[in-house]
Amino acid sequence: MLTTHILKPVLVLAILFSSALCTQVVAQGNHVHSKGYALSSKDGKFTPYEFKRHAVGDNDVLIDILYAGICHSDLHHAWEDWRKETYPMVPGHEIAGRVVQIGKNVTKFKVGDYAGVGCMVNSCGECEHCEKGEEQYCNKRVLTYASKDIFHNNELTQGGYSNNIVVSENFAIKIPGNAQIEKVAPLFCAGIMTYSPIKFTHVKKGDKVAVAGFGGLGHMALQYAVGLGAEVTVFDITEEKRQHALDMGAVKYVNVNNPEELKGLDDSFRVIISTIPAKYDPAMYIRMLRIDGEMVVLGLPSKENTPSVDISTLIWSARRKIYGSQIGGIRETQEMLDYSVANNIYPQVEVIPIQKVDEAYEKVLAGGVKYRYVIDMSSLK
Amino acid sequence: MLTTHILKPVLVLAILFSSALCTQVVAQGNHVHSKGYALSSKDGKFTPYEFKRHAVGDNDVLIDILYAGICHSDLHHAWEDWRKETYPMVPGHEIAGRVVQIGKNVTKFKVGDYAGVGCMVNSCGECEHCEKGEEQYCNKRVLTYASKDIFHNNELTQGGYSNNIVVSENFAIKIPGNAQIEKVAPLFCAGIMTYSPIKFTHVKKGDKVAVAGFGGLGHMALQYAVGLGAEVTVFDITEEKRQHALDMGAVKYVNVNNPEELKGLDDSFRVIISTIPAKYDPAMYIRMLRIDGEMVVLGLPSKENTPSVDISTLIWSARRKIYGSQIGGIRETQEMLDYSVANNIYPQVEVIPIQKVDEAYEKVLAGGVKYRYVIDMSSLK
Repeated sequence: MLTTHILKPVLVLAILFSSALCTQVVAQGNHVHSKGYALSSKDGKFTPYEFKRHAVGDNDVLIDILYAGICHSDLHHAWEDWRKETYPMVPGHEIAGRVVQIGKNVTKFKVGDYAGVGCMVNSCGECEHCEKGEEQYCNKRVLTYASKDIFHNNELTQGGYSNNIVVSENFAIKIPGNAQIEKVAPLFCAGIMTYSPIKFTHVKKGDKVAVAGFGGLGHMALQYAVGLGAEVTVFDITEEKRQHALDMGAVKYVNVNNPEELKGLDDSFRVIISTIPAKYDPAMYIRMLRIDGEMVVLGLPSKENTPSVDISTLIWSARRKIYGSQIGGIRETQEMLDYSVANNIYPQVEVIPIQKVDEAYEKVLAGGVKYRYVIDMSSLK
Repeated sequence: MLTTHILKPVLVLAILFSSALCTQVVAQGNHVHSKGYALSSKDGKFTPYEFKRHAVGDNDVLIDILYAGICHSDLHHAWEDWRKETYPMVPGHEIAGRVVQIGKNVTKFKVGDYAGVGCMVNSCGECEHCEKGEEQYCNKRVLTYASKDIFHNNELTQGGYSNNIVVSENFAIKIPGNAQIEKVAPLFCAGIMTYSPIKFTHVKKGDKVAVAGFGGLGHMALQYAVGLGAEVTVFDITEEKRQHALDMGAVKYVNVNNPEELKGLDDSFRVIISTIPAKYDPAMYIRMLRIDGEMVVLGLPSKENTPSVDISTLIWSARRKIYGSQIGGIRETQEMLDYSVANNIYPQVEVIPIQKVDEAYEKVLAGGVKYRYVIDMSSLK
């Protein structure tokens, strides 16, 4: 059984102590020595893996990772659901830790600060997207793992299921000292993924909003929309989550497997956030939008389960928009984090040791996590 | 061969004279006697057909039809491409004519005025859509033909390939006396269908806009967007239309059958209006949108040719929206008509006698019309 972990003061001290030690070690030589858990193929299991990260440059920070979230997309990458991958692969793009070394030009952090990393570790900094603070749309963006780092000799990036990470200060997010640090990591993906569309669709008090798919992303979308005063209906396929959704502020929960509950919902919502990571019928949700309503799709099922929308649905459901969204820029991620901490909006997490990561993947696949696994990196010996 | 017709003064007099006669005839009895061309089955040819329309009520006008446009959607209805239909069917929802009788409460028209009718002849008048002037989204809207008229004993409505039509003054559009009347009919569908999305996407000077599919709708979309100062690229599948599109103000014409011309177009347009009525790949166009760009789909291919968009395309092309649009409300149709006449924006029409309607359908299907057939209803003996 997976156990829930509670951060204890003694542990914080231990982490600080080990971080200080670590700083001494990694400062030597050009590269940073890292250890984590990796997959060596799409069919394999996670095993301990040692590797090197690029040196801490003048604008970089070295972060000792305290916690790393497990995102459903990690499974898709790990198992080559979306594309051909390169192994060994250390997944993880929801990272919360502590700065243990800074480059000479770094001003945003000092050693000892909490810092986080999300899905990206670099971008060109010059294109129109970067200039707008939407680095996620930069053609040269570098993803946190499973990506070629064109700014560092095309190194394969490795993610957060590891003890440390080196990243430009521009791509590290400041985490306030009063944050519930063991719950912060998932905000860097599940948080910003849902915060961003809720902000750019201008969700406001009294809006009728739906959240389709109530998992890691869905339970964050619910909290942000409720926080802004929206009336939120949650859709999922199990009775088990009904009370949770209501407890988190949903005005209604619809079990999609119960046809009776789906009646009368057409033409209801101004915004629908779909986080469904499996096969489903988008047309059913599009019809639930009001005119000029928007369905923002965040969940990307595996290739063989990818649903489609036909043009006739769009024509007959006129002026009901559907489109995707990808995370958010660094500036918006910082805004999301500050907002979340200030408003006590966190994921519901189950903290696990890294040795349980294979088991956790199976549970995520089965929709059995409530609602985000976070790996306690102190378990990495 | 189909011939182009030029309206002559003598014909205008003849129409006025016959209209006056007609008024005398139809005023008798409860129903209005009409004659037109109908299909008796989806596989049949058009033949002369006599039928009755409901009486001219207190709020109705009786319009003698001068011209009726042929819309691609007429073919889809006629041939049951979209749904099961009821026959005999008199198609036609692009109607321009002259008012020959008015009900006692009518204030918008007087006998002798030009008037037009588009895709709708009634709606509830009370719902939120009607109140917003978007009657096309009213659940009770009555389409001009092939529709059950719930406000008139569930009569089957019959369209504009006929000598007259009875319609509530609220659904008749005023046509200024200086309009080029033989070119006006298509504005009530092709005109408003394209004007509406160009307005609600706020196309403005300097915007990069694409029009995909250069036929009856496409050549109107081009003219409206150019009129607003946009830089418009036109996409179609033939060389034949290249010069026409450039002559009508396109900055570029892309022959989609030539792969070379498609290169370098990703991430280019703020708005794409797709009027393509056949099989195509929407993903190719979605990728040509800029972030936060919008693809408005107006063309609805037959069932077996309906294209789809998969969710992964939407996710990887994040914040590029796709959705449909249906015509426009009555208020906006009036605005479109006044704007078109004032700015000399008309369809390029080929006027044909009604006896050529079967032949015209074949040409429309083959994409061979440039760019709209208009039936001269004086040919109906």
